[in-house]
Amino acid sequence: MFLHSVYFWLSNPESTDDRAALQAGLESLRGISAIQTAYIGTPAETRRPVIDHSYDLSLVLAFADKAAHDVYQDHPVHLEFVAECKHLWSQVKIYDVDAK
Amino acid sequence: MFLHSVYFWLSNPESTDDRAALQAGLESLRGISAIQTAYIGTPAETRRPVIDHSYDLSLVLAFADKAAHDVYQDHPVHLEFVAECKHLWSQVKIYDVDAK
Repeated sequence: MFLHSVYFWLSNPESTDDRAALQAGLESLRGISAIQTAYIGTPAETRRPVIDHSYDLSLVLAFADKAAHDVYQDHPVHLEFVAECKHLWSQVKIYDVDAK
Repeated sequence: MFLHSVYFWLSNPESTDDRAALQAGLESLRGISAIQTAYIGTPAETRRPVIDHSYDLSLVLAFADKAAHDVYQDHPVHLEFVAECKHLWSQVKIYDVDAK
């Protein structure tokens, strides 16, 4: 398995339009068949010092393997998402995991 | 869905014994039935400035909901894992996601 987890911090977190636009962009990614499972969400209500809940939206994708992840990275729907939405975030942090 | 992602930095990353002990501890968590899906792994080979590949091991758990996550947190197997293994890591970072 290959896990690709992305945490997004909005440029304008107070803008409901920006948030909705990024959410819609993330939802568009579900159509990419290389993805095995897609989780799209927001910070849970848990609060402990070791928990980073400062992000605005998150995308966690599970792929069968790195090859499937690479197909996703180059997929036109993903490239369109980045082109259309990258102005919405000020920061992203990614964790890629070679998982079992 | 509730995603609980934990990234571990070992106190002694050069110790293969410590790494194996943490890996074994993480594997023990798979027996907790409240978990829907468990991914245990290491940094993938991807390298970009936005990718944090500095951690040593990761645990990503998917639960049906927060109630299932709460059962996991208080489960004896999880509490034993923390008690037995917490000396192995110098840092953990957690992202909890309320996901769809």
